[in-house]
Amino acid sequence: MLLRLGYDLQFDIVEPVACVAQLRVHPSRAAGLRQPDRVQVEPAIPLEEYADSFGNLCTRFLAPAGTLRLKHDFLFEDSGLPDPARPNAVAHPIAELPNDVLRFLLPSRYCEVDSLAAAAFDLFGNTVPGWGRVQAVCNWVNAKVAFGYNFARPTKTALDVFTERQGVCRDFQHLAITFCRALGIPARYAAGYLGDIGIPPAPSPMDFSAWFEVYLENRWWTFDARHNVPRIGRVLMAAGRDAADVAFFTSFGAANLKNFLVISDEVTDASAPRSAAQS
Amino acid sequence: MLLRLGYDLQFDIVEPVACVAQLRVHPSRAAGLRQPDRVQVEPAIPLEEYADSFGNLCTRFLAPAGTLRLKHDFLFEDSGLPDPARPNAVAHPIAELPNDVLRFLLPSRYCEVDSLAAAAFDLFGNTVPGWGRVQAVCNWVNAKVAFGYNFARPTKTALDVFTERQGVCRDFQHLAITFCRALGIPARYAAGYLGDIGIPPAPSPMDFSAWFEVYLENRWWTFDARHNVPRIGRVLMAAGRDAADVAFFTSFGAANLKNFLVISDEVTDASAPRSAAQS
Amino acid sequence: MLLRLGYDLQFDIVEPVACVAQLRVHPSRAAGLRQPDRVQVEPAIPLEEYADSFGNLCTRFLAPAGTLRLKHDFLFEDSGLPDPARPNAVAHPIAELPNDVLRFLLPSRYCEVDSLAAAAFDLFGNTVPGWGRVQAVCNWVNAKVAFGYNFARPTKTALDVFTERQGVCRDFQHLAITFCRALGIPARYAAGYLGDIGIPPAPSPMDFSAWFEVYLENRWWTFDARHNVPRIGRVLMAAGRDAADVAFFTSFGAANLKNFLVISDEVTDASAPRSAAQS
Amino acid sequence: MLLRLGYDLQFDIVEPVACVAQLRVHPSRAAGLRQPDRVQVEPAIPLEEYADSFGNLCTRFLAPAGTLRLKHDFLFEDSGLPDPARPNAVAHPIAELPNDVLRFLLPSRYCEVDSLAAAAFDLFGNTVPGWGRVQAVCNWVNAKVAFGYNFARPTKTALDVFTERQGVCRDFQHLAITFCRALGIPARYAAGYLGDIGIPPAPSPMDFSAWFEVYLENRWWTFDARHNVPRIGRVLMAAGRDAADVAFFTSFGAANLKNFLVISDEVTDASAPRSAAQS
Repeated sequence: MLLRLGYDLQFDIVEPVACVAQLRVHPSRAAGLRQPDRVQVEPAIPLEEYADSFGNLCTRFLAPAGTLRLKHDFLFEDSGLPDPARPNAVAHPIAELPNDVLRFLLPSRYCEVDSLAAAAFDLFGNTVPGWGRVQAVCNWVNAKVAFGYNFARPTKTALDVFTERQGVCRDFQHLAITFCRALGIPARYAAGYLGDIGIPPAPSPMDFSAWFEVYLENRWWTFDARHNVPRIGRVLMAAGRDAADVAFFTSFGAANLKNFLVISDEVTDASAPRSAAQS
Repeated sequence: MLLRLGYDLQFDIVEPVACVAQLRVHPSRAAGLRQPDRVQVEPAIPLEEYADSFGNLCTRFLAPAGTLRLKHDFLFEDSGLPDPARPNAVAHPIAELPNDVLRFLLPSRYCEVDSLAAAAFDLFGNTVPGWGRVQAVCNWVNAKVAFGYNFARPTKTALDVFTERQGVCRDFQHLAITFCRALGIPARYAAGYLGDIGIPPAPSPMDFSAWFEVYLENRWWTFDARHNVPRIGRVLMAAGRDAADVAFFTSFGAANLKNFLVISDEVTDASAPRSAAQS
Repeated sequence: MLLRLGYDLQFDIVEPVACVAQLRVHPSRAAGLRQPDRVQVEPAIPLEEYADSFGNLCTRFLAPAGTLRLKHDFLFEDSGLPDPARPNAVAHPIAELPNDVLRFLLPSRYCEVDSLAAAAFDLFGNTVPGWGRVQAVCNWVNAKVAFGYNFARPTKTALDVFTERQGVCRDFQHLAITFCRALGIPARYAAGYLGDIGIPPAPSPMDFSAWFEVYLENRWWTFDARHNVPRIGRVLMAAGRDAADVAFFTSFGAANLKNFLVISDEVTDASAPRSAAQS
Repeated sequence: MLLRLGYDLQFDIVEPVACVAQLRVHPSRAAGLRQPDRVQVEPAIPLEEYADSFGNLCTRFLAPAGTLRLKHDFLFEDSGLPDPARPNAVAHPIAELPNDVLRFLLPSRYCEVDSLAAAAFDLFGNTVPGWGRVQAVCNWVNAKVAFGYNFARPTKTALDVFTERQGVCRDFQHLAITFCRALGIPARYAAGYLGDIGIPPAPSPMDFSAWFEVYLENRWWTFDARHNVPRIGRVLMAAGRDAADVAFFTSFGAANLKNFLVISDEVTDASAPRSAAQS
């Protein structure tokens, strides 16, 4: 399945500010790129690319005062299949986990594993370790937390979500991640593209999306406590311990977002790809 | 100056549990090792060594039920000089920081940079960026927070320290780190050996110590909001975003510490080194 | 000055629910009433009136399923003068405060006096006790906290306001109250009518308002960390330790507010009063 | 059953400080007093007695610098029966509760009813309202929270107890109170005497004790999530919304407790009462 992916972000910058964008497709999905994946920045300023400690591709620059625009769109070849599932996937004993997976068991800024460990055992201690346990976590979070864009706030943690039972995408995932880690299942926060492909009418307003991944049976698997059904066309951009590690745009100083557009569509007429350069 | 460093830790393990120790000298201090630095584990069990994403040396193993003992002592050549200081060291504009330093500006589990940013600017917004600003942070934390071993608790964050004004070593550093990051100065948590060398009588009971490092003028510098004076014989073991990344011992399940001894002494009679093998 | 005061509130009630309204004028302002002050409830149901432990007049009832409407409007004679001020008013030593004032020094649900005491002394410890200290608190809160209706959330406490620096009316007052109590000045939360009388064009959308009162020189005085200027036509409805004690409407179960109108206008043409009975 | 009750408290007072003691037997238990109940204060200073808004008897004074001693002991006639129980006691619909009981449904400083409401329904939503529901709350808290004197801290709230699962007497009661209120059952914090009467050897070190009361079937009933068994010889001193309202000693400034003795014994040899005057 061919997807058109992209974004168009505009900011008002009052004074020069250092910025980091995590807007590129994750290296693990590079094979799907049908066109180069470069962040196009207006005005033309020097960009520096690097991979952070999680392997996410980052683009750094010093934004000058004025309007800053980050945009790109490109074609991406996806399997067209829903998120892979293996309902009998087993959990590894912690002693057998890869070294670099262990850090996804620890507490992090928005995932207070230490504070929610007892609640996790109360709620899920009797479930069988493995896929079913993660699914139980997702079912619970999905059923108990109400979604609403007005419930967002930047300092909201998993414990806040547990007590307030309200949130946006990232909040659902933070709570689910925290429960999983407390239960000994490595879990990481993921962000990327998620269109409405295969979803009946009335799609949600377009934005990037957050989900999470757990490590079971030798690999990472996608879960999504917000939607809680397998979806088509999920394309990873960045993964980390929680939203503190993963942000499509970070400015170390003021930057006011004034326009925000994300594209994630199936291309049905392949003869007419609109390239980023043409837009 | 020749130091004898080491530890002797004993745990009661009720059932087999996966463990990670961060008990080795940090690679940045490897030149000082006069004897091999190996964690000696009793009973003899397979150990796996790896470096975590911060470059800290970790030792992993599956501890069997029974008594677990981790011990070692070894000679270490230190400069014998106090913590280096450069009181006119400048802060880098964020746009000029190395890529791998940027993550030490972000919020982390015990350092809610987002929540304490306003207080940091209230308190230190008028200080001059650079060494003096960090020193002002340390002076404030040192003066305002009371030390007491009974003030420790595992979930205590920088915000808790700010409101309660009580804590142990790690709490002092967490608050200072959080303020520094909020002020645009990369700061990381550090743990290691710190003896009473050069300190008049009545030394504190021996333990590992926590301090922090900030990035100024092209390198990391040691600061210590708890003691707040340059010290001799500080030997780094591990550094990370906060205590969630740095723990001399982590068990993924119950492990009861029943004995805890840390050695950090100056060797004045060099003719009689007691090697780890002899102990 | 003659005011017309009133409200018109409509709720959807799904199943019968116990309710308490604090919609009456506070007994301390009863002299201004030019018409009876009764909560008119539709449908006609039994009402019970009582004074709570703070002396606020409460109206209790069991709301049946369906639409619930609470309304009233009435004429009220006000001095027409701005909030009284006595800039040299002294603070009482705590030992000389009246017995029933002491409780307004204690921590309460949204005012964590214990947690913010150190910050209060950092910020205001050098101000002179009395009116000036309270004004310094109000100036600080007013300058540091940004107002926005979208910053409201029901569990937000003074500590949250201190860290987030955003809020609505009640949040400003909670933070100021907490600082005052920590500094030994009794402070209580107040709610009532506050129109735009004497304010130039572009008044704010009409709502009830929150302010606070402090006890200095033998009486309670009005302060308002949100507006931070003396205002005309403030009419108290209820006072208590914080918003947990004072709510114009409390339902012990679901009740969805679907219409909300508050009237607080100067009556300039006294010949045409619109009485509640006529509306 | 005849009890000897009393206390001997000594403080170091550095500079004169306003104090309030809640050391008298609650008016509801006055009938049991066999000797006058007066707080004896050394040095002899003026005392003022008053009842607070909960009806607790308070003793106010300005403590001079030096040693402050509060003491008393007296004989008290108790039923000798365990805490009354009525396992089929029903819960009142909120609409039928007495006016002055309603405030014990609201959130308070250490009882964040709003934040723990969802967890309360998760855990106890399926229990039958009434005595059994309260007992289920006590059983849960008693089983899940570990007791330890070193777990005490002054700012600890019910939510902290829920996440940390550790605490002292007051913490157990705060969590149970919060759950009860969230479930629509009025609950208040209680403090008083509780000896080891009828308890086999190895009694706990003597202190005042905290428990809680719930309103069922037209009266308040004693529950105790810490001990969770009916006890003999419980004598109420003060009740309020939580520990912020009830403290045997409050000083508005520094006062260091240096001696603390509580007496709560059965008098078996009635011929030899030791009166307070004789001690």
